Amino acid sequence: MNQKRIRDYGIFIGDMKTGIKNSIADVKGVKVGHFTLNDQDIKTGVTAIIPHEKNVFENKLVAGSYIINGFGKTTGLIQLSELGQLETPIVLTNTLSVGTAYEAVARYMLKRNVDIGKKAGTVNPIVCECNDGYLNDIRGLHIKQEHVLKALECASEEFHEGAFGAGTGMSCFGLKGGIGTASRIIEINDERYTLGTLVLANFGERSRLTIKGKQIGSLIKQMHNDDEQVDKGSVIIIIATDLPLSNRQLNRVCKRASVGLSRVGSYYGNGSGDIVIGFSTANTINHYEKEASTNIRILNENKIDSAFKGTAECVEESVLNALICAEETIGRNEHKRMSLREFMNLI
Amino acid sequence: MNQKRIRDYGIFIGDMKTGIKNSIADVKGVKVGHFTLNDQDIKTGVTAIIPHEKNVFENKLVAGSYIINGFGKTTGLIQLSELGQLETPIVLTNTLSVGTAYEAVARYMLKRNVDIGKKAGTVNPIVCECNDGYLNDIRGLHIKQEHVLKALECASEEFHEGAFGAGTGMSCFGLKGGIGTASRIIEINDERYTLGTLVLANFGERSRLTIKGKQIGSLIKQMHNDDEQVDKGSVIIIIATDLPLSNRQLNRVCKRASVGLSRVGSYYGNGSGDIVIGFSTANTINHYEKEASTNIRILNENKIDSAFKGTAECVEESVLNALICAEETIGRNEHKRMSLREFMNLI
Amino acid sequence: MNQKRIRDYGIFIGDMKTGIKNSIADVKGVKVGHFTLNDQDIKTGVTAIIPHEKNVFENKLVAGSYIINGFGKTTGLIQLSELGQLETPIVLTNTLSVGTAYEAVARYMLKRNVDIGKKAGTVNPIVCECNDGYLNDIRGLHIKQEHVLKALECASEEFHEGAFGAGTGMSCFGLKGGIGTASRIIEINDERYTLGTLVLANFGERSRLTIKGKQIGSLIKQMHNDDEQVDKGSVIIIIATDLPLSNRQLNRVCKRASVGLSRVGSYYGNGSGDIVIGFSTANTINHYEKEASTNIRILNENKIDSAFKGTAECVEESVLNALICAEETIGRNEHKRMSLREFMNLI
Amino acid sequence: MNQKRIRDYGIFIGDMKTGIKNSIADVKGVKVGHFTLNDQDIKTGVTAIIPHEKNVFENKLVAGSYIINGFGKTTGLIQLSELGQLETPIVLTNTLSVGTAYEAVARYMLKRNVDIGKKAGTVNPIVCECNDGYLNDIRGLHIKQEHVLKALECASEEFHEGAFGAGTGMSCFGLKGGIGTASRIIEINDERYTLGTLVLANFGERSRLTIKGKQIGSLIKQMHNDDEQVDKGSVIIIIATDLPLSNRQLNRVCKRASVGLSRVGSYYGNGSGDIVIGFSTANTINHYEKEASTNIRILNENKIDSAFKGTAECVEESVLNALICAEETIGRNEHKRMSLREFMNLI
Repeated sequence: MNQKRIRDYGIFIGDMKTGIKNSIADVKGVKVGHFTLNDQDIKTGVTAIIPHEKNVFENKLVAGSYIINGFGKTTGLIQLSELGQLETPIVLTNTLSVGTAYEAVARYMLKRNVDIGKKAGTVNPIVCECNDGYLNDIRGLHIKQEHVLKALECASEEFHEGAFGAGTGMSCFGLKGGIGTASRIIEINDERYTLGTLVLANFGERSRLTIKGKQIGSLIKQMHNDDEQVDKGSVIIIIATDLPLSNRQLNRVCKRASVGLSRVGSYYGNGSGDIVIGFSTANTINHYEKEASTNIRILNENKIDSAFKGTAECVEESVLNALICAEETIGRNEHKRMSLREFMNLI
Repeated sequence: MNQKRIRDYGIFIGDMKTGIKNSIADVKGVKVGHFTLNDQDIKTGVTAIIPHEKNVFENKLVAGSYIINGFGKTTGLIQLSELGQLETPIVLTNTLSVGTAYEAVARYMLKRNVDIGKKAGTVNPIVCECNDGYLNDIRGLHIKQEHVLKALECASEEFHEGAFGAGTGMSCFGLKGGIGTASRIIEINDERYTLGTLVLANFGERSRLTIKGKQIGSLIKQMHNDDEQVDKGSVIIIIATDLPLSNRQLNRVCKRASVGLSRVGSYYGNGSGDIVIGFSTANTINHYEKEASTNIRILNENKIDSAFKGTAECVEESVLNALICAEETIGRNEHKRMSLREFMNLI
Repeated sequence: MNQKRIRDYGIFIGDMKTGIKNSIADVKGVKVGHFTLNDQDIKTGVTAIIPHEKNVFENKLVAGSYIINGFGKTTGLIQLSELGQLETPIVLTNTLSVGTAYEAVARYMLKRNVDIGKKAGTVNPIVCECNDGYLNDIRGLHIKQEHVLKALECASEEFHEGAFGAGTGMSCFGLKGGIGTASRIIEINDERYTLGTLVLANFGERSRLTIKGKQIGSLIKQMHNDDEQVDKGSVIIIIATDLPLSNRQLNRVCKRASVGLSRVGSYYGNGSGDIVIGFSTANTINHYEKEASTNIRILNENKIDSAFKGTAECVEESVLNALICAEETIGRNEHKRMSLREFMNLI
Repeated sequence: MNQKRIRDYGIFIGDMKTGIKNSIADVKGVKVGHFTLNDQDIKTGVTAIIPHEKNVFENKLVAGSYIINGFGKTTGLIQLSELGQLETPIVLTNTLSVGTAYEAVARYMLKRNVDIGKKAGTVNPIVCECNDGYLNDIRGLHIKQEHVLKALECASEEFHEGAFGAGTGMSCFGLKGGIGTASRIIEINDERYTLGTLVLANFGERSRLTIKGKQIGSLIKQMHNDDEQVDKGSVIIIIATDLPLSNRQLNRVCKRASVGLSRVGSYYGNGSGDIVIGFSTANTINHYEKEASTNIRILNENKIDSAFKGTAECVEESVLNALICAEETIGRNEHKRMSLREFMNLI
């Protein structure tokens, strides 16, 4: 996509190797699509993550989650936690459009699965959100169901970071936030796996932004102490991997996203909905399975630390990519979010 | 409403006193409204619970929840659990209409609270669901936003049980299920409190229906072993009380709903989304609170057992009220659910 | 053991087949041992469950747990939940002797595993408890480490129910409680598995005892309304199975123990520590595993309902076996607990 | 105590004011006592935290907890979570001595409360642990009950940091770890509260030690790449405050300890038991309460962010204090842990 990312500024997070694209789409089968609404007071959109190439309702994936701070409205985690399964794409949008996106995902699934609501039970849409109300006229509920379908349909291994899709109107550390991604190679014995993350970054107090240990946010705040709001943001973190992780192991991996957030300067503020969802493409669960039991491959727990480290690195870098890729944006009521790019000289 | 309830058949659950109406609306301020769609293949609807008389966004209530079995799609519990607060009415509908209902509640709240999405953050709609697909053309997504608003607007202290509102197309123990309610007086020292429950009953295997310890379901199944499906139902249980309970105490009370379910014959089947939400009207939380801290009244934990017992009794009786008040119903594809009334001679 | 059990009174719980012994020891490899202290004011003991025949530290088992009500002091569940593993026998005793039992298990494990505390990390003892202080001089801390070792060493497939081992001083529904067990055959497709439970029953209000739906406790209370205390008991429930369950699935199965408790008359009282631990012998986890990942067999989630039903039945029957096998006991301060046997004519 | 702490090296963590002593004992009533065993292969001990000045069984405190990573054996959290109450001092020691410490605390409580085990139910000892087996002959179980009592009895507002008490044999980032503390003033409106933390630091990979954003661990590892073990440590974090926090709020505050850990270089390794316990001295709960309900003061949730930030700062600084106060130590098998002091020139 030719966007200049944080590594292009000479900033390297951690010591693990990245995947080829340094993107969640390095995990085979994962695709991401955006739909963007960007018109004066309307700064919002939808980002969709397709988790693998097969029909995900018929071939469910093992999934996990973790609530870092629950001031959020993500749908679907009750069932995802009970069954340890993902059975739809994951859709990200603004907070007040969760219902619209839920209905759109329901319709999308009904169309592709004629058994749903007849023989096959119902379906559990995963819709995540952040509040883009600082830049966006969120009360206008501008997201329509067709926007969600467009994001789903245009999903690709290549996708923009920064102010696109659900990231269009998001703020992060008082700057322009949005979508970011990164990946790491997880080497265990002689085997190579990939773990990638995608974030919708909309959190953080300006003064606390920290890049590779340097708290440049305090410098930025000295220069621009104008309009900072209290942290009422949120961050959504999606983790994909081909490591053969169980639901319990994915829950553990998801928890390590909080390490990455901490390192960029978050303390998981009261008003922030910080939600992590992870899935593994290594085993699929057949919706129509007839056998009493099945064989699955599961990671040796003694080897899980590299997945933990990789998650922490990916999340840290994903947030920085979201910031650095995002353009300065002026939205609702002339509210303005500057780009991190203006401040890279401070590092 | 002049419906014949389970007590009217001489069946008395437990040994505690009921409230005046033996209804969740015995808790002062609680109101319930239905919107019903009942037309051949379309058997569905909406039930709304207004938790108290004030603006619930500005005057939030302390709330708790418990997931008995998480094969369900209820929205809003992440934030309800994090903050221990309820800030919207609770809306019940069919599984695939959750998105529609979510958007409707969002719009309802926006209309009544001009600060939402501007100064006051966003809002956390609570939408609960069961799958009425056996009797209802659930794939048709027949619930529209205006239906949700109608249910909210017609909420009253008097409301129907059985096949009304969200209960229109629900099945329970292979019979016609739906909405049921009950209440108990909780006496502690010399003080009298009220606890009431409302259930949306859509769970259970026919053979296991148990009334006051007698497993009449096995008799019913001998007579009618035709069309029983596996338990893919769900039950939503709403608990209201004026006991001054904290979030933690409400979580504990919610868990005791499972006692009532067990006694009518449930084992919390794999495919059933059994969700409990409880709230207390005793303390309100001002959205715009400025003080550093506030005084609240909290129940002495040593006295909580009567709330536990009352919850168990109310849930058991609410399910039986849902069954006995529900008419025989023929819906989608000539699927039929008989009424429990036909079998009361077995007791 | 030639004890007369509840089935010997013509009372059959549920409709599933029992294992050969109708005991947790029907699960291959499971053994149970008691050490009993029964001397006037001293009515206490230890019960040990050996989960399989191999060294359980080197060959850990997949395990799960569920807290029905957390007014209890069981040790080891933090790690068991994080890793989904059981690596020691499970020991039951009285509440104030948990520390003693913990140290005894630690020493027992050290002796059998020279790597612990050197190369192999430490070890996570599982010690569960109930308060037998009504009949036992619990303040006397009469359990010594050698008692725990004796219980471990005498473990066998044959063991007593009722007032033996940790059950010696326990009360249940105001009667004499203690140890009980039961098992069920779980048939899935054409495969046969076994699930068994062992309870340490020390819970319940006298008036609520319910046998096969009949609340005979209210009759007993009419006859004997003397010395009933508030429910400050507890119940420990151990579930063993050869079903190939994951940690998440075991957690779900453990939760269904509450169905069995509800059916005998519990509402999970405030003062009761109601704790469930489950393990599967189907897969073992090598402490020294070197491979990156391993193959395990996992139950098809769509087939899990029979494990749920079996658990509910086993727990209900285990409690009744504990009651019916327990002799009338007079302990500390002439406190007396009658046997259920005296009241079987009421059924 | 005249130990040179991290601030004395010119390193200031965060921007909030410290309490007078910059210690958990800045919270009124909190006292800490050590018992130390330091003799060649025996490097272990006990640290006791007295939470307030009254009898804590009769006057329980509101408490919360959070499991960052559950590879640990802390006792008492099941009940602490269910009831939201602390009713004993908190004792820290080595992993294999948890049983001994549990029994010692039980006896300590029995002695001070004649009702326990008679009229007042039992008691829930909180014992936390880390594995000091690298420096200490942990298999020797050298801690005796009288050592625990000595730690409890010598508790004071003044206490040592570093290699004392439970910290005697602990390692942290491949250096000598142990006990550390810090505090912050929490200003809300015009009111001043205090929040303090105490850590038992025994976690971290050498290469990842990070001080104020600078990863000096990688430099230390280049110089000393000899004996580093995998992270099999643990960290215990105790939070005390006079903020009027509910159990739910304390749980939220406890979670923010992970921010502090992340900032010093932890990723919550698989083998690390990272446990947080918090309590508030603002409200006490009378064990013998007779009233139906009581008034308590609760922090306005909208003001909780400063407690989150303070916790993150305190934990980060407590870990650094543990490191900088700890002397180089040679223990079992000539295993050696250097002091951070040797490396302060790297900053």
